[in-house]
Amino acid sequence: MAWQPVGYDPDDFANRRHIGPSPEEMAEMLEVVGAPSLDALIDETVPASIRQKDSLSWPALTERELLARMRAVAARNRPLISLIGQGYYGTVTPPAIQRNILENPAWYTAYTPYQPEIAQGRLEALLNFQTMVSDLTGLPVANASLLDEATAAAEAMTMAQRSAKSKAKAFFVAEDCHPQTIAVIRTRAEPLGIHVLVGPPDSLVPSEVFGAIFQYPGTFGHLRDLTGDIDRLHAAGALAIVATDLLALTLLKEPGAMGADIAVGSAQRFGVPMGYGGPHAAFMSCRDSLKRAMPGRIVGVSVDARGNRAYRLALQTREQHIRREKATSNVCTAQALLAVMASMYAVFHGPKGLRAIAERVHIHTQRLARALQAAGARVSPSHFFDTITVEVGVGQAGILAAARAEGLNLRRIGTDRVGISLDETTDEQVLLRVLRTFGIDAAPPHRGNVAIPEDLLRTSSYLTHPVFHMNRAEAEMMRYMRRLSDRDLALDRAMIPLGSCTMKLNAAAEMIPLTWPEFANLHPFCPEDQAAGYREAIEDLSAKLCEITGYDAFSMQPNSGAQGEYAGLLTILRYHRARGDDQRRICLIPVSAHGTNPASAQMAGMEVVVVRSTSQGDVDLEDFRAKAAAAGDRLAACMITYPSTHGVFEDTLREVCDITHAHGGQVYLDGANMNALVGLVKPGLVGADVSHLNLHKTFAIPHGGGGPGMGPIGVKAHLAPYLPTDPRSGQAGAVSAAPFGSASILLISWAYCLLMGGAGLTQATKVAILSANYVAARLKDAYPILFAGNRGRVAHECILDTRPFAAHGITVEDIAKRLIDNGFHAPTMSWPVAGTLMVEPTESEPKAEIDRFIAAMLGIREEIAAVERGDWRVEESPLRRAPHTVQDLVADWDRPYSREQGCFPPGAFRVDKYWPPVGRVDNAYGDRNLVCICPPVEDYAQAAE
Amino acid sequence: MAWQPVGYDPDDFANRRHIGPSPEEMAEMLEVVGAPSLDALIDETVPASIRQKDSLSWPALTERELLARMRAVAARNRPLISLIGQGYYGTVTPPAIQRNILENPAWYTAYTPYQPEIAQGRLEALLNFQTMVSDLTGLPVANASLLDEATAAAEAMTMAQRSAKSKAKAFFVAEDCHPQTIAVIRTRAEPLGIHVLVGPPDSLVPSEVFGAIFQYPGTFGHLRDLTGDIDRLHAAGALAIVATDLLALTLLKEPGAMGADIAVGSAQRFGVPMGYGGPHAAFMSCRDSLKRAMPGRIVGVSVDARGNRAYRLALQTREQHIRREKATSNVCTAQALLAVMASMYAVFHGPKGLRAIAERVHIHTQRLARALQAAGARVSPSHFFDTITVEVGVGQAGILAAARAEGLNLRRIGTDRVGISLDETTDEQVLLRVLRTFGIDAAPPHRGNVAIPEDLLRTSSYLTHPVFHMNRAEAEMMRYMRRLSDRDLALDRAMIPLGSCTMKLNAAAEMIPLTWPEFANLHPFCPEDQAAGYREAIEDLSAKLCEITGYDAFSMQPNSGAQGEYAGLLTILRYHRARGDDQRRICLIPVSAHGTNPASAQMAGMEVVVVRSTSQGDVDLEDFRAKAAAAGDRLAACMITYPSTHGVFEDTLREVCDITHAHGGQVYLDGANMNALVGLVKPGLVGADVSHLNLHKTFAIPHGGGGPGMGPIGVKAHLAPYLPTDPRSGQAGAVSAAPFGSASILLISWAYCLLMGGAGLTQATKVAILSANYVAARLKDAYPILFAGNRGRVAHECILDTRPFAAHGITVEDIAKRLIDNGFHAPTMSWPVAGTLMVEPTESEPKAEIDRFIAAMLGIREEIAAVERGDWRVEESPLRRAPHTVQDLVADWDRPYSREQGCFPPGAFRVDKYWPPVGRVDNAYGDRNLVCICPPVEDYAQAAE
Repeated sequence: MAWQPVGYDPDDFANRRHIGPSPEEMAEMLEVVGAPSLDALIDETVPASIRQKDSLSWPALTERELLARMRAVAARNRPLISLIGQGYYGTVTPPAIQRNILENPAWYTAYTPYQPEIAQGRLEALLNFQTMVSDLTGLPVANASLLDEATAAAEAMTMAQRSAKSKAKAFFVAEDCHPQTIAVIRTRAEPLGIHVLVGPPDSLVPSEVFGAIFQYPGTFGHLRDLTGDIDRLHAAGALAIVATDLLALTLLKEPGAMGADIAVGSAQRFGVPMGYGGPHAAFMSCRDSLKRAMPGRIVGVSVDARGNRAYRLALQTREQHIRREKATSNVCTAQALLAVMASMYAVFHGPKGLRAIAERVHIHTQRLARALQAAGARVSPSHFFDTITVEVGVGQAGILAAARAEGLNLRRIGTDRVGISLDETTDEQVLLRVLRTFGIDAAPPHRGNVAIPEDLLRTSSYLTHPVFHMNRAEAEMMRYMRRLSDRDLALDRAMIPLGSCTMKLNAAAEMIPLTWPEFANLHPFCPEDQAAGYREAIEDLSAKLCEITGYDAFSMQPNSGAQGEYAGLLTILRYHRARGDDQRRICLIPVSAHGTNPASAQMAGMEVVVVRSTSQGDVDLEDFRAKAAAAGDRLAACMITYPSTHGVFEDTLREVCDITHAHGGQVYLDGANMNALVGLVKPGLVGADVSHLNLHKTFAIPHGGGGPGMGPIGVKAHLAPYLPTDPRSGQAGAVSAAPFGSASILLISWAYCLLMGGAGLTQATKVAILSANYVAARLKDAYPILFAGNRGRVAHECILDTRPFAAHGITVEDIAKRLIDNGFHAPTMSWPVAGTLMVEPTESEPKAEIDRFIAAMLGIREEIAAVERGDWRVEESPLRRAPHTVQDLVADWDRPYSREQGCFPPGAFRVDKYWPPVGRVDNAYGDRNLVCICPPVEDYAQAAE
Repeated sequence: MAWQPVGYDPDDFANRRHIGPSPEEMAEMLEVVGAPSLDALIDETVPASIRQKDSLSWPALTERELLARMRAVAARNRPLISLIGQGYYGTVTPPAIQRNILENPAWYTAYTPYQPEIAQGRLEALLNFQTMVSDLTGLPVANASLLDEATAAAEAMTMAQRSAKSKAKAFFVAEDCHPQTIAVIRTRAEPLGIHVLVGPPDSLVPSEVFGAIFQYPGTFGHLRDLTGDIDRLHAAGALAIVATDLLALTLLKEPGAMGADIAVGSAQRFGVPMGYGGPHAAFMSCRDSLKRAMPGRIVGVSVDARGNRAYRLALQTREQHIRREKATSNVCTAQALLAVMASMYAVFHGPKGLRAIAERVHIHTQRLARALQAAGARVSPSHFFDTITVEVGVGQAGILAAARAEGLNLRRIGTDRVGISLDETTDEQVLLRVLRTFGIDAAPPHRGNVAIPEDLLRTSSYLTHPVFHMNRAEAEMMRYMRRLSDRDLALDRAMIPLGSCTMKLNAAAEMIPLTWPEFANLHPFCPEDQAAGYREAIEDLSAKLCEITGYDAFSMQPNSGAQGEYAGLLTILRYHRARGDDQRRICLIPVSAHGTNPASAQMAGMEVVVVRSTSQGDVDLEDFRAKAAAAGDRLAACMITYPSTHGVFEDTLREVCDITHAHGGQVYLDGANMNALVGLVKPGLVGADVSHLNLHKTFAIPHGGGGPGMGPIGVKAHLAPYLPTDPRSGQAGAVSAAPFGSASILLISWAYCLLMGGAGLTQATKVAILSANYVAARLKDAYPILFAGNRGRVAHECILDTRPFAAHGITVEDIAKRLIDNGFHAPTMSWPVAGTLMVEPTESEPKAEIDRFIAAMLGIREEIAAVERGDWRVEESPLRRAPHTVQDLVADWDRPYSREQGCFPPGAFRVDKYWPPVGRVDNAYGDRNLVCICPPVEDYAQAAE
């Protein structure tokens, strides 16, 4: 019969969904690039000497198969009700927030708000977060946000060290801090030579320490007024840090009122699922005088070119990417999406709602304690918020088992106690189940009294800003979230061609399992057998990452790329130490490295030695050799990025590794550019010893407007014994609060690997390289391409040089802001070379979108030419006046170009144009006049007049 | 201790989430209204004589409790793999479409696109749907869309009757149409006096019929070339209808190529879950000459005020709301959201992808048939697409049980056969499970041949429009869906104050369960025990609706409000007939009734007698009494709306009921305004015998941009025996293809009832009445309020009279379009009185949003005054030039008011302003130049220049 099969696989996720260009379009692109085939291009680009021989092995699943597999894996988890507490609590994610933020690509595909004009929505949400933290902790300055409570505590320790008058070398940790907090503090302290003293609060000797941290309420539930301890610390020139709980603070006297200098904690229980460890947003707030010492991002208020209010990231000069080897923190990616969720939770409930939730939790706890005491149990403490400890003696195992039979997890404490922490989800039924665990049949009534001492009751108000009062009806809340997201330009509207950030597709199928209760509702410290699904996912993902990288083992603990770097360097240091090589502390880092590289080395207590680049942008091998030799047996490691941060596959990779190894050092290969390697080059097979992978770059975790991310590290076998350890031990060695970091988003990367299959991943790498070379080929006549390999090819990104235009006053920022008028997020600006734009199209951008970007860039080049010719003065050119807003259109038009030219440059959508809500933001103004909590609002939602 | 409980329940869904105004705001509103309390206002508004005595009984659940309950209910469903076919097939909803359309409020909260300027996105998606249907069926005109395949077939029958040259009274139905299609055709035919002949195709005698319908492929899988039959029908002046399958048509000769006049079918298998019956979009296409006879909505292409392309609904004069008692169809709400999904599925896959899916389905079926035959089974037909029938003799029960043991549902046919329909989800494993059911261990390989005769293979191309070719990468697809949704103004951005449409909050918690596989993947004809969860939900919802309405029984079959009316009238007719009162055919309908009332009565074969209104807008009791008396024993029913369509609680309800009953008639109370009654008045207790409820108005099902909806009917006990019957019987009595209509969205209304509780629902009614009276009080000095009750109160909506402005040339349309500049969807225009606006704020609008609307209306009144004063000619006023677009701002400004005045009238958001993508649309142009498939597109996504 006349049957012509169409020969097309509609379920081929890699080639029909993820990879943007169609086969026909790739042929057109190869034509432009001047390569006979995709494989030929790759051969010209990636040095043969390092190419892997075998293909990645596993087959691809269809989206439907993936979701079926995910359901089967989810079914292996058993989400019992966890009353373990210890920093992780049951919470109710308001469905409106789940749907409209966590499950909405407008929010989760956004990038970090470095370009404030296109990020006003999430900047406002993050400002709300800061306001919430500032109000509840009673300290005037807050950031947004940090990775988890434990790392926030460690950051606070180093912040105290550099800010305190006291020059003591020790740091006091109250023994009733969460064990994982103690562990991460110990880890951080060790390479920095800080002596950590853990003990009961009354053992604190202020003169011996530069600072101290207290948990409030304590990990076992205790409430103590810290005012006296803090006064004594201050008298000794030391600083006081309070690790605290936002929900408790709706009822309890706030740390600021006790005189605390810094407060830290987790915003998890504000509507963010536990997710077997994360992601959640940690917070930090501090006294005003400490604000410039604070790590992490701070959203501030400034004005735009018209003087209208505009938000943007403030005090950027504090940050690691500026301070590099002088950095004191490497916090970069944080947990923006989760901070947004927590802030919306506060907006949704308002102060009354939050307080009502806290009251309910407390009253349930109080009834529980009373019932237990009435039954003869020894319960402590006598004052508590939501957590109590019960002495159970030899009955511990029996009680824990009885609890599990009731569907509950209690906390195992020592050998003879159990901890119980109630939460927002605790209802009468749960209370009865807890009591039945102890053989009690009925819950006592509430008597109206509370177990909080009067002098610890909160008396100050909080969340008084109108934003926390006007959005409690779901209709209003839904519209508020929509309005904010509409102000922003994210991947769901346009390509984000950010070099080194790999803004690729975050497919819906990869995101869907995340909010299933079987994945969302697991406590990170629940019994292992309840997390069998997670274990399966993590083990299979590890195996696949090992195959991809050529490493032998992976740790999933680091929950950001920077933290992965830090964890990798610690692993190297521990390896050296185990061999008696304590003196190996020098780390060679090329000048072109990511700013987090030297910052992480600094945090690991290493001595950073910077290696020069050649004029071609490659590592200067001579300099490298000389500095390695000079370091000699003090050489700990080198940190290199491959392909280089200049977007080039250098030919010297094996040599760099050999030199390092020859001097006894270990090679840290930064995995930021792994998107150019997957399926082509295995770092572990070409000489590297350890790498972190940015799962939020190469492995499809969305950027969430500035996090979450995951930075697992892979190592060769000899380093495996020195990987991060379990944070529950309380001992040094852990880098995150949870054993698997932000475990729930590992599912996204696993789903990506399963959907793509080994062949699909490899093809993605090739197309990413093709697309970058296509951009370079199309733009090279307009903008010099800064670096290329020895056969003229770039890797997966390319650097456009805009320095020639400086002579006419045109800055790289002018181009970046003009691109907003075209409807694009700018490429990476001035990194790794000032005055350049680094473009990374990724494999998942359709050719039409890449072409639209090229049209925009060529249009801008025409405008530059007009300035060069003197047609426009740069100050009055559309470049400098960019971005153009609706306000510009409405106002009188006094410009030498038309409204049409200003607003609809080539590449801009006509009907679907993105309009930035503000004009160019004045950064200096905002830093001079720092405001980082919500300013007074205009009338409801800017209704005119 | 000093403990002051905050006294606030954050989990109170009704009062903290659903109901918009806070208690404090309600006090302010009562002050404005001039009522001492909410209850006092209700007492002044709702006549005491009809108030219910008892409160609604059930308690409210929290959102968390609701989702837990829903999970438990879901677990009682067992979604086996259904290979039953019969119009419902497994399909894969692309996750990107699920997330970005079905789960996205920007799409699901939109209203029907009657205001085209704010609906260009969904109009484009629906135009894509029409293009897809037109292409695949090979007929030039398609609509978007119809309720289900069975009702579409019935609509096609009546369309054929009024279009055919033949005046024969009979209609032929091929016996291998789906049974539910035959049932609904019989139901429709009966009251219209059409004689339905069901038989094998070769029994057709063309001269005896005005039309005939064939199923292609047949319900048992047969493929027949219908060209000969169609030629014979045409020769006799009769029309040919083909009920068909879009997926099959990617391989099979299209109906248009066989000469068919009309094609109908379901687009369910294009990515829309079965949902235990729906909702899904049915389609209809036809020859060009029939287009004005086509029911349902047709999207057409026109131009806006600047001559730019703009979409809008075409040929509106065909529709029921215009034609009323001359109407030939009552199709109103259809299945827009599902049509959008199906169109996006086609865009996602493109013609190659669709064909590949069809090929795979066919090849699997062919292998299955071959394996069965090889094992000695008798398989028919020899030519098929995806469906075969196997003779199993007395083994039928055994085979069906064996299949269930394999996790499969097969179709039971007669007593000795089973049907098997494969689908997109059939993979090798499923094929093996089917074979194992028959004791066969291995599947044969594909031999390259097909079971489709060569002359039935499709030779024409389809989906050649670029839109079906450029969106196959998920990144591109995601952005396309986002761009379209951004063009539209839906409830997620602003209040939609549409009188009679009750655009209330569709809470996220109510929507979440819908896409769970346990609810989504059930075949409507699966064994009952697999749907125990659905049964529980439906029974509990029925019980609650009975309690709310005072009726004794409910039928969930009607899947729109209009279909509910029709079903209710049929129930009344069957009741009369059972009592020997065949002559009772007169239906009294007030002149102010919804247009669907007379249209439904017309469809039910009733004689409509129109009753006058008094000048106050009430039913003219004298006229009613006289016409009822005149009808005498021919009186079948009256149809009334309460509160009246004038937005007033009339005092005459009981009297109207008494008069009707006195003459032996039944009272049909239209439930469109049930939002003013829930918890206050039970129709079944004040004299009504039957009502439909618009679950998509009062009970929180979102409007989906024009459907889905559900219109279940409640009846008093004496009517219960005459409710719609099971469509599977093939006999008259069914009104929908599935026993419970669009069953899956019943879950939304059930969730709403559970979340609100009886008290919450009652409070919602009261607040809806308060909000309407507040709007009336605030606007009455600017716009006369047309009707009010005898104590000066309106019900849940109010009518603003704009006729006084006509003297200055200002039309109601001018006001409606100007409201777009304020960021609002217009109120209901010119209904029930021409030249008026009917405003229904609903209980879920926050006061701030209502105030914004009032500010907008007062601002418009100022502009009207300026025209009245002669400051502006109306033609050059912002009223007439509205809505204002970005194009207007960019272009030269030649207007007597400023850009600022034009674009930012009072109430408009400044930063977050909604910009309509087109200016005022020219309706007449589009009807004169009807284009209802995608026109040629510009370059990719309107990139400028």
